[in-house]
Amino acid sequence: MVEPATATQAAAPVMPQLKDELDIVIPTIRNLDFLEMWRPFFQPYHLIIVQDGDPSKTIKVPPGFDYELYNRNDINKILGPKASCISFKDSACRCFGYMVSKKKYIFTIDDDCFVAKDPSGKAVNALEQHIKNLLCPSTPFFFNTLYDPFREGADFVRGYPFSLREGVPTAVSHGLWLNIPDYDAPTQLVKPLERNTRFVDAVLTIPKGTLFPMCGMNLAFDRDLIGPAMYFGLMGDGQPIGRYDDMWAGWCIKVICDHLGLGVKTGLPYIYHSKASNPFVNLRKEYKGIFWQEEIIPFFQQAVLPKDCTTVQKCYVELAKQVKEKLSKVDPYFDKLADAMVTWNKAWDELNPPTAGSVPNGKPA
Amino acid sequence: MVEPATATQAAAPVMPQLKDELDIVIPTIRNLDFLEMWRPFFQPYHLIIVQDGDPSKTIKVPPGFDYELYNRNDINKILGPKASCISFKDSACRCFGYMVSKKKYIFTIDDDCFVAKDPSGKAVNALEQHIKNLLCPSTPFFFNTLYDPFREGADFVRGYPFSLREGVPTAVSHGLWLNIPDYDAPTQLVKPLERNTRFVDAVLTIPKGTLFPMCGMNLAFDRDLIGPAMYFGLMGDGQPIGRYDDMWAGWCIKVICDHLGLGVKTGLPYIYHSKASNPFVNLRKEYKGIFWQEEIIPFFQQAVLPKDCTTVQKCYVELAKQVKEKLSKVDPYFDKLADAMVTWNKAWDELNPPTAGSVPNGKPA
Repeated sequence: MVEPATATQAAAPVMPQLKDELDIVIPTIRNLDFLEMWRPFFQPYHLIIVQDGDPSKTIKVPPGFDYELYNRNDINKILGPKASCISFKDSACRCFGYMVSKKKYIFTIDDDCFVAKDPSGKAVNALEQHIKNLLCPSTPFFFNTLYDPFREGADFVRGYPFSLREGVPTAVSHGLWLNIPDYDAPTQLVKPLERNTRFVDAVLTIPKGTLFPMCGMNLAFDRDLIGPAMYFGLMGDGQPIGRYDDMWAGWCIKVICDHLGLGVKTGLPYIYHSKASNPFVNLRKEYKGIFWQEEIIPFFQQAVLPKDCTTVQKCYVELAKQVKEKLSKVDPYFDKLADAMVTWNKAWDELNPPTAGSVPNGKPA
Repeated sequence: MVEPATATQAAAPVMPQLKDELDIVIPTIRNLDFLEMWRPFFQPYHLIIVQDGDPSKTIKVPPGFDYELYNRNDINKILGPKASCISFKDSACRCFGYMVSKKKYIFTIDDDCFVAKDPSGKAVNALEQHIKNLLCPSTPFFFNTLYDPFREGADFVRGYPFSLREGVPTAVSHGLWLNIPDYDAPTQLVKPLERNTRFVDAVLTIPKGTLFPMCGMNLAFDRDLIGPAMYFGLMGDGQPIGRYDDMWAGWCIKVICDHLGLGVKTGLPYIYHSKASNPFVNLRKEYKGIFWQEEIIPFFQQAVLPKDCTTVQKCYVELAKQVKEKLSKVDPYFDKLADAMVTWNKAWDELNPPTAGSVPNGKPA
């Protein structure tokens, strides 16, 4: 039935800000001075700060922000033995914030990322662009040569099947970085001076069946649609690998989105990435991953989820099973990772119990 | 063996112009005044002009261009009965030019396309960008979030498997259009005033397994790699359909490129498309295609070529067979089209006989 708008709806801005539906998750080991630059964009939102490393250290947050902060002691207290699935001394710990949020949308950003400028010199409201990306459908089944057909001034081009033009719900919006590009240690070592100065004014759907390297620096997603799969793995302290947390999550969510008919977008918005991390430290963290990814990628490219995997949770447990079966022979680490995926899944369900007559994550229908 | 450069090589420009290796193919029914604007870019190259419609009409070409021109009488004379596979009264006739060329590369452009400007106001040398695209590898097996990793200032990002970084040879470079976008008739009718003003500074590989709507307005390809599949079908005079010539070719070449491990790029360069064609005329041409494409796309998405199809020619004949088997039930037109695909294939081989001890298309090894 078609109904007229209420007064509140009519007064709402054209661009929904989703103030009560979005949390910003920030992993950090330092005072959050970087928030000053983001104040006009972030202050309306609730922040979830996941403090990494020494929990006795105090993290200063600039005044005026609405936030909750979790350190390692909090994580251990909340999750008990299941806290083992949350990484320590690695920004992978951010995924704890996804779990404790009760909002529909998450935006996560690194604390060395600042506001970028577009070619006209205007500050880029990254969060607004992510929201636009998430609220517009994705088109994973056929490539549109004018990129996102739902952007102003664009559409589907000639030859695009009309039956596919409704698109599918967008689960993930992957933003990019000006200045310091997200290179691996070997590339950093070879090209220490390379800076990304190219502002590509495009958003596009990553086609079904195609994997991509998802970076956690500037990332938003629909927690209801894909949250339970947005696990950043076991990295850092006590683990043989680092800097593959977001990659791992990206491969998992892409396989699951493809299976469930959800969309993943990449492109705008840009943030300004201020400082290159140390390539020697990175090489030590990435070393094993450089070999392992040669086997991980074919594994995910070939992964097939059975038809009865109709929820993200079911898909994720099935994927954990396949990781154990097929990747444990690459290294015993994957056996441990598969177990951690299952632990994550259980912890997620404990913190986000479905309620009768509700849509996912306990929101009343 | 590594050898030093010769004096000639050392004196060559960094950007190869491929003067002796590229033909520009232009289908037309009118005097080619538009070439004046392209003179600085096109004059070094040989033009193949395919005159459509009334062969008694004289097409004027501005002085100073090196060209050969074929009208319908020429096509009939050269191909004999096989001329039936070349469309009449439709720009699909351009593919005759691909067949009679003896060069490695083809650039084809419509005669209502002018030189675009980049955001800094500089004229875009479309041909140079196409050559760059064709000479750099493609990366169809994994998506690079910074787009073409071979462009200056870009590279493969963290998480991109090193074994895939060599890429594969690029067979096709699909350029875009500022001003009048390439919309179908329904979209033209709904959005008569929409203009494409967004200059997206990106080139990207269309991933393996993903189909796209290939537009023939601004297109370049490696004739040695994919020429025999670049057939623009049966359109226009005596046919039930028009404006699907480039689409048809695009679906065929993408399936074959995916099978043979070749790359297809889209994005830069832009041309300025000056004039929207009549949406009512277009609707009449497209009408059947709007229904048919709903069955054609799934057909191509599911098409599998057997392993013994190791050349473009073999792939193309196999694809023609599958078109006959699976699409003839959609409309008898596809039966005729499948036959025309085989005729095209034979005509190609006649005009381009392989010679002993040569690489494809008779170039001495």
